[in-house]
Amino acid sequence: MVIVVREDASADERAEVMRLLSAQAGGSASVTAARTRAGYVVCAPECVPAAKLVRQLTALRAVARVVPAAAPYPLASRELVPDGTVVTVGAVSFGAGAPVIIAGPCSVESAEQIEAAARAARDAGARLLRGGAFKPRTSPYAFQGLGLPGVELLARAGAAAGLPVVTEVMEPGLVPAVAELADVLQVGSRNMQNFPLLRAVGRAGRPVLLKRGFAATIEEWLLAAEYILAEGNPDVILCERGVRGFDPATRNLLDLACVPLLRTLTHLPVIVDPSHATGRRDLVAPMGVAAIAAGADGLIVEMHPRPDDALSDREQTIDPDTLARLVRRCHAVRAALDHDTAGERGDVPEELAAGAGR
Amino acid sequence: MVIVVREDASADERAEVMRLLSAQAGGSASVTAARTRAGYVVCAPECVPAAKLVRQLTALRAVARVVPAAAPYPLASRELVPDGTVVTVGAVSFGAGAPVIIAGPCSVESAEQIEAAARAARDAGARLLRGGAFKPRTSPYAFQGLGLPGVELLARAGAAAGLPVVTEVMEPGLVPAVAELADVLQVGSRNMQNFPLLRAVGRAGRPVLLKRGFAATIEEWLLAAEYILAEGNPDVILCERGVRGFDPATRNLLDLACVPLLRTLTHLPVIVDPSHATGRRDLVAPMGVAAIAAGADGLIVEMHPRPDDALSDREQTIDPDTLARLVRRCHAVRAALDHDTAGERGDVPEELAAGAGR
Amino acid sequence: MVIVVREDASADERAEVMRLLSAQAGGSASVTAARTRAGYVVCAPECVPAAKLVRQLTALRAVARVVPAAAPYPLASRELVPDGTVVTVGAVSFGAGAPVIIAGPCSVESAEQIEAAARAARDAGARLLRGGAFKPRTSPYAFQGLGLPGVELLARAGAAAGLPVVTEVMEPGLVPAVAELADVLQVGSRNMQNFPLLRAVGRAGRPVLLKRGFAATIEEWLLAAEYILAEGNPDVILCERGVRGFDPATRNLLDLACVPLLRTLTHLPVIVDPSHATGRRDLVAPMGVAAIAAGADGLIVEMHPRPDDALSDREQTIDPDTLARLVRRCHAVRAALDHDTAGERGDVPEELAAGAGR
Amino acid sequence: MVIVVREDASADERAEVMRLLSAQAGGSASVTAARTRAGYVVCAPECVPAAKLVRQLTALRAVARVVPAAAPYPLASRELVPDGTVVTVGAVSFGAGAPVIIAGPCSVESAEQIEAAARAARDAGARLLRGGAFKPRTSPYAFQGLGLPGVELLARAGAAAGLPVVTEVMEPGLVPAVAELADVLQVGSRNMQNFPLLRAVGRAGRPVLLKRGFAATIEEWLLAAEYILAEGNPDVILCERGVRGFDPATRNLLDLACVPLLRTLTHLPVIVDPSHATGRRDLVAPMGVAAIAAGADGLIVEMHPRPDDALSDREQTIDPDTLARLVRRCHAVRAALDHDTAGERGDVPEELAAGAGR
Repeated sequence: MVIVVREDASADERAEVMRLLSAQAGGSASVTAARTRAGYVVCAPECVPAAKLVRQLTALRAVARVVPAAAPYPLASRELVPDGTVVTVGAVSFGAGAPVIIAGPCSVESAEQIEAAARAARDAGARLLRGGAFKPRTSPYAFQGLGLPGVELLARAGAAAGLPVVTEVMEPGLVPAVAELADVLQVGSRNMQNFPLLRAVGRAGRPVLLKRGFAATIEEWLLAAEYILAEGNPDVILCERGVRGFDPATRNLLDLACVPLLRTLTHLPVIVDPSHATGRRDLVAPMGVAAIAAGADGLIVEMHPRPDDALSDREQTIDPDTLARLVRRCHAVRAALDHDTAGERGDVPEELAAGAGR
Repeated sequence: MVIVVREDASADERAEVMRLLSAQAGGSASVTAARTRAGYVVCAPECVPAAKLVRQLTALRAVARVVPAAAPYPLASRELVPDGTVVTVGAVSFGAGAPVIIAGPCSVESAEQIEAAARAARDAGARLLRGGAFKPRTSPYAFQGLGLPGVELLARAGAAAGLPVVTEVMEPGLVPAVAELADVLQVGSRNMQNFPLLRAVGRAGRPVLLKRGFAATIEEWLLAAEYILAEGNPDVILCERGVRGFDPATRNLLDLACVPLLRTLTHLPVIVDPSHATGRRDLVAPMGVAAIAAGADGLIVEMHPRPDDALSDREQTIDPDTLARLVRRCHAVRAALDHDTAGERGDVPEELAAGAGR
Repeated sequence: MVIVVREDASADERAEVMRLLSAQAGGSASVTAARTRAGYVVCAPECVPAAKLVRQLTALRAVARVVPAAAPYPLASRELVPDGTVVTVGAVSFGAGAPVIIAGPCSVESAEQIEAAARAARDAGARLLRGGAFKPRTSPYAFQGLGLPGVELLARAGAAAGLPVVTEVMEPGLVPAVAELADVLQVGSRNMQNFPLLRAVGRAGRPVLLKRGFAATIEEWLLAAEYILAEGNPDVILCERGVRGFDPATRNLLDLACVPLLRTLTHLPVIVDPSHATGRRDLVAPMGVAAIAAGADGLIVEMHPRPDDALSDREQTIDPDTLARLVRRCHAVRAALDHDTAGERGDVPEELAAGAGR
Repeated sequence: MVIVVREDASADERAEVMRLLSAQAGGSASVTAARTRAGYVVCAPECVPAAKLVRQLTALRAVARVVPAAAPYPLASRELVPDGTVVTVGAVSFGAGAPVIIAGPCSVESAEQIEAAARAARDAGARLLRGGAFKPRTSPYAFQGLGLPGVELLARAGAAAGLPVVTEVMEPGLVPAVAELADVLQVGSRNMQNFPLLRAVGRAGRPVLLKRGFAATIEEWLLAAEYILAEGNPDVILCERGVRGFDPATRNLLDLACVPLLRTLTHLPVIVDPSHATGRRDLVAPMGVAAIAAGADGLIVEMHPRPDDALSDREQTIDPDTLARLVRRCHAVRAALDHDTAGERGDVPEELAAGAGR
């Protein structure tokens, strides 16, 4: 159960709500208060919304709304923000209708490389620049990224091209320094259940791009988002990037059906990474277009001015021309589908609305 | 290696080709002759196309073309039919550009039900009618279908509505009887590696819809198709229907990336079954549209005049209105993408062509 | 619900039981009668054992016992035969305490080879001889086995060495011919849900070795066994052989925990195939011993007089000396564990009994 | 390639080795020096051991041994320490022959609870005490553990019972404080690829229990161990705890075949966690015994004085009596197998040795 508290409620009035809920929750520690997209809320995930309790809460002046939210992730659940959350980064909006493409190299390699990439990304129609500086590499002997100086190069290149930047952070202790330089903090697939890191980015004051763990269920993923939301950071963008499969034909197994499914479960925007999902350059564009057709709010794509020279993820990195064509096709597909849609974009699509109440 | 033989070659000339190859293949039994989309061919899958052998073969009057075909499935490989195979069923063509939607109930339940379904499918824009009469059910106590009388009802309903019909066959002994009545024979997911059945449908003189096994690799799937092709049946349509995953959130895990990947590996048309892939009514339409965006040649969808009354697969069965909207959206997406495509449809798309030679 | 019928019940009395249950089951077809290890039974899987119905049934002279059997596979469920089923093949018993080792080559290749294999298997302590004559091969171009003549060679070699034989059958139409020659019929992993085949072996009058499908859940597996039991064949031996995993380090992923789990769910004996499970010669023996330690009733192992010359499955085939050592170690482990067991073998072990009631 | 350096080599002589290798490795950063079980080594993972280079290195006075080590994880590879590493914690040795059982509650809940658990573990024959104080919980609202005060309670209880203690650490910043109190640091499954954490425990001066990620390949796991070894910590114990599977029948899918496989790949000791692997109390003991039969060096088991009162992991926690029986059975199985083993324990078993050279 989640209680949305009136904006003008006093500290005492808020405390009253907390008290009432804590009593119900049996004195357990699991009553949390957080500022969310729905306003200031108090959240008691295990508290059953019994009729009497709902009456008592509704009677309080401080209470704006009681949301039953039966999901184990009440702050991330669609019920809390039925219209969906729009996450804004500079002039760019995720979840507002138009697909947003993020592009850039796997790794920041040099000032020159990242600047060229930034210009190419912008010219191809991408709206944010990506680039890794702290690289989670399977082997301790592989290139580990340029670290903080790499983030600085990325930020400078983004600023020069007029693109906000997103980069991965792997360690709670480094979150403040990276948040100083980057517009969006990425939590990578391997760290989706690195709970101290999730708490740290929850307090960093920056939007977070939360990649799905490569063997995480949808529920585990939304609970990971809940860690961030519960710290008071309402700006979480989910990113599907493929799960581990049994067939070596592709690097991972892109679970595209999670896109329309998430629309029924959560209010958070969802984007797709077709580069890591497939691991093959030739599959990035078709799967990027398919992701938009499935309802994704955007893509994150590995693009390099000269893909064959990339220091990492070469086989799945596309060139600027392919990116430009992909961006064009994404917009064409979105437009074709919007043309056929009666209601407003951002609503739960008709076919999903039917299923949402099951 | 595959040798395409001239149409006018005599029996002796053909035998000469066989002899030459058999000698090379070390007397093993693995030299096969079959009538394929590329004409009459002789196939020696393990034979390395050494320069000398190629010269010897090319010198024979009977030899039209030598195809190196390094894949373990030479008859299914893209190299053999670079332009792609178009499978024709009555007035309908799979692989010719326009997406083909197959729709109908999970099971044939009665004359009335299947006739209503046939009319609804046709009116919604579907081009073939599906309906199961031999149902592979996990439990021996579940409804097992109406059997041959069900196939008759299906065929009659299809004829009345002007739609060819597709139905599953599970047993080699029943293939001739079902082939008598149905336009397309479906081999279900659980039977993808039922090799006696594959041989039987390979000799049945009907196009075959070959569903991917729910834990089959792409290579295993193409080798299953090869069993059918090697019997002389060139009309195989591949159907992705989701693989087994670890997350109970959806019934299966739709591997949509296999669609553009298959385009680089095989000349056979590929369709997608979003009903079994997701197991959820509300996800069928978005994933159907996404499949077309990924390049699929069509869909097979479970639709019932009154989904809630269906005897099987109720939760994943859509109604006629949802189907009509899905068909419309598939065509809209296909048109939007074609508009942006320089070359001819049916060619390997540009982004795939680049990767195909890797 | 399952009703065990008295041996001396008349046809009329039996019919009375059927009538009563059919009425309850709402006229559905799912009331089945079969001869089982527990005697002649009538099975109504969807029938809830309401107190009134149980009273009515118990009042009938024909009814020996009413078994609630809540599982979807009542005939396979432990409740029906709490002491466990012992499957007897000649002088050999599966499920009677001592581990039974089945060994032999992947394929029957020649009279000489299979006779040498039979002698080597017997001398190493194996009690049954295995050998494939109908080989389910992924590629149509791979060696497909010798067919019925191969089964004859196998039967002759087994008889000469004094070992009963087990061989795979893939096609319903061939079941009678194979059952004529072989002592145990194997249903392979790819055919676990080949339902016409399951029915055919259910009527063949021979014990059946039912391998788990490589992506089958335990429940699906037991329901496949139920197909056989429902045809009146009580002699089913389950065989775990590894499921499909994501790590290419081993050919499959051996799910050994299914062994003690099955002990709580079913009365059928369970054996393990460490050869296919691992795909590596060096892992066969350690995993075979581990299977016995986990409580398996036996093993089926690929052994060849000269493993490096085997026509198929070379990498996972062990030699006679390794087999002899493995048999010895299996017995040693079984003895060490029996020594520590208070109760009688064949009972559900103490640690399982605790959990069985959950 | 790994170079083992003589103990008495001077700083200059060591530098000479580094110089020679760095030149060969093309100036890349991937030449690492570390103190390992094999002595002080210099490791150049991508350097091919060409004959000339090996001659040059062998000619240096400082070089004791050149190990080709073709694996991507040279420090973890079996070749470096063919006899296997024995990790010693107080009076207990992992990898020395006798199986070592670690037991204790999932979470430290109170002084009383952990003290009772410590006594029960010791009396049942366990040699180390486990207990979580930093709990990685899927939901932010679940009990998160007592933190550092919990580690203190654990350490005190262990000391009182005469058992060394092992506990999980999740955050690089907390490693020194936990290492102050605990005898063994556990890196949990979700953190197997938390690379900053791996580096931190690599510098902590304590043995590390490295759990396999729940979707990690064997190679990824050994590369995670390599991160720790490369920091100079030679004391890594690997722990298999089940991987994610498709069947909800068990919590995870225990990959027991990894135990004998790892014996061929690495010199590090391997233990098994049957509690998390199965998630069912009744399967812990049979799978624990099976693990020892497969060659595991020990087990880690969740045990609670009153399992039904445990705050977490109740369903998979056994009681002291079951633990005592399990310990007894593990030793019985180990003894039965040792009795049958010609060579010395600690060697690669005969059946593995044969395969190791493939």
